[in-house]
Amino acid sequence: MRLGIIGLGKMGSNIARRLLNNKHNCVVFDLNIYIIKLFEEYGGEITFFFKDLLKKLYTPRSIWIMLPYGNITAKTIYQLIKYLNTGDTIIDGSNANFKDDISRFKLIYKKGINYLDVGVSGGIWGLSRGYCLMIGGDQPIFKIHTYIFESLSSLEKNIKFSIFNKKDYIYCGNTGSGHFVKMIHNGIEYGMMESYAEGFNIMRNHKNLNLKNISEVWIHCSVISSWLLYIIYIILKKDENLYNFIGYVNDSGECRWTINTAIEKSVSAEVLTASLYSRFRSRNNNNYADKLLSAMRYKFGGHIE
Amino acid sequence: MRLGIIGLGKMGSNIARRLLNNKHNCVVFDLNIYIIKLFEEYGGEITFFFKDLLKKLYTPRSIWIMLPYGNITAKTIYQLIKYLNTGDTIIDGSNANFKDDISRFKLIYKKGINYLDVGVSGGIWGLSRGYCLMIGGDQPIFKIHTYIFESLSSLEKNIKFSIFNKKDYIYCGNTGSGHFVKMIHNGIEYGMMESYAEGFNIMRNHKNLNLKNISEVWIHCSVISSWLLYIIYIILKKDENLYNFIGYVNDSGECRWTINTAIEKSVSAEVLTASLYSRFRSRNNNNYADKLLSAMRYKFGGHIE
Amino acid sequence: MRLGIIGLGKMGSNIARRLLNNKHNCVVFDLNIYIIKLFEEYGGEITFFFKDLLKKLYTPRSIWIMLPYGNITAKTIYQLIKYLNTGDTIIDGSNANFKDDISRFKLIYKKGINYLDVGVSGGIWGLSRGYCLMIGGDQPIFKIHTYIFESLSSLEKNIKFSIFNKKDYIYCGNTGSGHFVKMIHNGIEYGMMESYAEGFNIMRNHKNLNLKNISEVWIHCSVISSWLLYIIYIILKKDENLYNFIGYVNDSGECRWTINTAIEKSVSAEVLTASLYSRFRSRNNNNYADKLLSAMRYKFGGHIE
Amino acid sequence: MRLGIIGLGKMGSNIARRLLNNKHNCVVFDLNIYIIKLFEEYGGEITFFFKDLLKKLYTPRSIWIMLPYGNITAKTIYQLIKYLNTGDTIIDGSNANFKDDISRFKLIYKKGINYLDVGVSGGIWGLSRGYCLMIGGDQPIFKIHTYIFESLSSLEKNIKFSIFNKKDYIYCGNTGSGHFVKMIHNGIEYGMMESYAEGFNIMRNHKNLNLKNISEVWIHCSVISSWLLYIIYIILKKDENLYNFIGYVNDSGECRWTINTAIEKSVSAEVLTASLYSRFRSRNNNNYADKLLSAMRYKFGGHIE
Repeated sequence: MRLGIIGLGKMGSNIARRLLNNKHNCVVFDLNIYIIKLFEEYGGEITFFFKDLLKKLYTPRSIWIMLPYGNITAKTIYQLIKYLNTGDTIIDGSNANFKDDISRFKLIYKKGINYLDVGVSGGIWGLSRGYCLMIGGDQPIFKIHTYIFESLSSLEKNIKFSIFNKKDYIYCGNTGSGHFVKMIHNGIEYGMMESYAEGFNIMRNHKNLNLKNISEVWIHCSVISSWLLYIIYIILKKDENLYNFIGYVNDSGECRWTINTAIEKSVSAEVLTASLYSRFRSRNNNNYADKLLSAMRYKFGGHIE
Repeated sequence: MRLGIIGLGKMGSNIARRLLNNKHNCVVFDLNIYIIKLFEEYGGEITFFFKDLLKKLYTPRSIWIMLPYGNITAKTIYQLIKYLNTGDTIIDGSNANFKDDISRFKLIYKKGINYLDVGVSGGIWGLSRGYCLMIGGDQPIFKIHTYIFESLSSLEKNIKFSIFNKKDYIYCGNTGSGHFVKMIHNGIEYGMMESYAEGFNIMRNHKNLNLKNISEVWIHCSVISSWLLYIIYIILKKDENLYNFIGYVNDSGECRWTINTAIEKSVSAEVLTASLYSRFRSRNNNNYADKLLSAMRYKFGGHIE
Repeated sequence: MRLGIIGLGKMGSNIARRLLNNKHNCVVFDLNIYIIKLFEEYGGEITFFFKDLLKKLYTPRSIWIMLPYGNITAKTIYQLIKYLNTGDTIIDGSNANFKDDISRFKLIYKKGINYLDVGVSGGIWGLSRGYCLMIGGDQPIFKIHTYIFESLSSLEKNIKFSIFNKKDYIYCGNTGSGHFVKMIHNGIEYGMMESYAEGFNIMRNHKNLNLKNISEVWIHCSVISSWLLYIIYIILKKDENLYNFIGYVNDSGECRWTINTAIEKSVSAEVLTASLYSRFRSRNNNNYADKLLSAMRYKFGGHIE
Repeated sequence: MRLGIIGLGKMGSNIARRLLNNKHNCVVFDLNIYIIKLFEEYGGEITFFFKDLLKKLYTPRSIWIMLPYGNITAKTIYQLIKYLNTGDTIIDGSNANFKDDISRFKLIYKKGINYLDVGVSGGIWGLSRGYCLMIGGDQPIFKIHTYIFESLSSLEKNIKFSIFNKKDYIYCGNTGSGHFVKMIHNGIEYGMMESYAEGFNIMRNHKNLNLKNISEVWIHCSVISSWLLYIIYIILKKDENLYNFIGYVNDSGECRWTINTAIEKSVSAEVLTASLYSRFRSRNNNNYADKLLSAMRYKFGGHIE
């Protein structure tokens, strides 16, 4: 299938490469000219101008956007709405807020343009291992693009769970559903990451244990075996002391939206919230609160700290 | 190897069976005569009296205890100390508190008896899939029993992570280390379980999503793929509404000890603690607190609820 | 001062009464005709039609809205915008989201109407004890209404903290600031309430303690003395077992907004969030999560609960 | 009444001074000779040797210990047990763990010595404002010492809550009850402090608000008025930026014991636990956890932070 791809960052370039490896026909564009040039070796049709990309595609055109969440994605979509025609399709593969999809969709729909929101999991491993895709939008439009999804998703199957022989992409429902499910996916990811981090932190503070070996032995058949644990093993094998990291942890938005959604629905999400707050803490964001506690202790108890 | 096994519950009987399947020689005992009789078909040497078990083993004897945490395990160990001789070995495979191991060990050591504390992960799946074993105690004593550990641990290897070809058991360090690492393992498990539970709960409360299909698609190559997720898939495939469960969730102690340890070490464990508290909440244990909140709202705000 | 008051619920009627007691001139209106009639005895000018209220006020008119958060307040404000003239003032004393103030203000300002957002604390005790008022909007408009705020705020002063002789209302800043500060105030309130609730809950579960007497002795000079503690004492004096409450606890929105704000600002608010979630839990909102935990325990461990 | 006092730190010296101001007869001792000399000006009988203190008291002797929690208190009590006689009384006014009281009591009781455990709240303000006392032990022994408790507790009464004219000390129950109630008291204190800290932290991060004025206006008749809020006001009046504090917050043990107790009783204490963890976080105790999170993000997502 012929596909336009806008955005050649870590995720975008790997997606383009995986599609090229699977004999798809990709026309790529990025705002950064150097990144475009670097991509040349992978064999896609590179374009240096937004409008060139549009011209090089055949009607009905399909364009996959893979840009950071926020203004840049919004702007690009509004530009596309301007230049695309009835029957063309915009695929937003970024980590967007599902509410943006829904509000954005009305505009897109008015012009007869199709829209798919696709949550993509797999990280930088996806190029070789394949991606897990969660897709929202009109089902017929989803179906038209199954070749793309098929190629992006995983080929290798886990023999341990050999009953599985289905594809690794899923149609979740109407517009926003793909990003919604991806949002929850990432919320869960935060909780799992923090679960491991806390456990290893307690072990580290307790006594001399070989954390690398422990992470390894847990991978095979313990109840907590997972892909993230495998990642931890690779990390600890290289450096159990984590000297290359200072412990400043960012977040990319989805866990915030997950919590907002939980609160909207009046359900609690203690663990997911604690995971997000733990990252805020790593950035020392509560310093004024801590200072105030210290000041109170001094003022009523005479404690100096 | 010839081994005595005390306790034929869900875990004990499966361990005995897996050892028998691997040509070990097991002499088994349980306080419940019916459970012993039921075990007969699996081919171990059954005994109906504690002392019979001791007699049927050859010096130096090794006895694996697989009993529920608490008094029953403690009592059994004190009885064994009384009857065993120098050179015999007690293996506690239950979910004991590592502090009990340490205090218990002094008594055991005085009589020249050996002691290994073994954390066992694998659940009821371990019989076929094999167990992950975390072992503490004197290293030479550990080495003498490697045949046992080899047979209990997993044979199947995950091809996805094909670089792994090591055994699935680990020597963690001196007495208590095995149960310590198992305790942390379970703490992490609580956090992971709660992460999934919260995520699926929000999806359930949000809108009509096919939770079964979503759990399935996440298993292969998403970042949150794990064995627990596979369990969730099996559950949801059978009944997405979970009609057979009322939502009363027990805990078996390890997460409590994990938190106690974290607090002792002055490190926080927000997610693991939230996971435990979530289970307390499922039992409606904070009803007086909730009533007091409601009463306050009534008294200062006139709110009736 | 002559003032229109829309909304005669628990808070609105008490505010009107306190103003009347302080020789202000109140024209009141409510959608519920019975509530209006009930109010007649307090001496305000009652009106049965929205437009009557507008007619009975003198230009420039000031109208205090005291309605539940949500559609009803929004609708009333849009109606007022329609009928009011340049120089008139709308005072929203309800628990509104400060973001609504800001978006609403643009419309109001266009028509030359003034707007004050006022956070009111004091509960049903405010009628006699006075209110604490947090006010946002244009400072000159705030100043014009100081008579109102002076009368509504507390007259009695705490002799313990005798250095205080200032008024009990505060100008917080531009539009939205009053409701913003009130939102934080309520967030803190949730945290304090939950702190007491958890403490008393542990005592209740521990052993036979006279909770009523304990709450009383803490009021005077302990570090945790507070007005809420006094409320608790009154409650426990009447019924230590809280037989009249089932423990279903509502929330009125501000704590949700506080958390949303914290997350927006990338700062953590562990305690305030836990307080809100605790209320969600009291409503058994996480039942599906609990069921899924229980199902996992059954599926991998064979635990039946 | 004639009373021995061991320990002249912040709390001990103020207690001795308040008793002296109330015409009690205090014989004081501290391990630090300079502290004893400094105390001379207040008029108590100072002693430089432990045994001197014992000699200067009349049978039956009452000795109040006011030492830091831990070894020093334990050692002093064991020394006292050695030298005291039947009918003498040890009063432990420190922040002890109620479980220590119970285990300690058996030894004390054997020798016919009496024991009272007293939780003391009031901080450095207690000297002038009086203390709130929570007392455990045999009731007749409690009654013998009411003169002491009466003098230590508050004289000033809050006119706002004028119905209160009772004393500010309470007999909580048998040995350990005083320290148990004090433990819960401090647990609640942690939760309240953190509630305020989080609220002010969000305000600080949101926009330019006059935090000092806000803390002041909340003191009088808002629902969150409290003594701690008054402390906050004093702090912010002096320095709203809290330049003298770095935000490293200690804890003194009681909140840890409160959480341990909650977990033992299978009740959750989300807010109290979050308050404690917040202090751990202020000491950057989770750095390894944070580093591991950062490493995971790098390894699967290529995120560099």
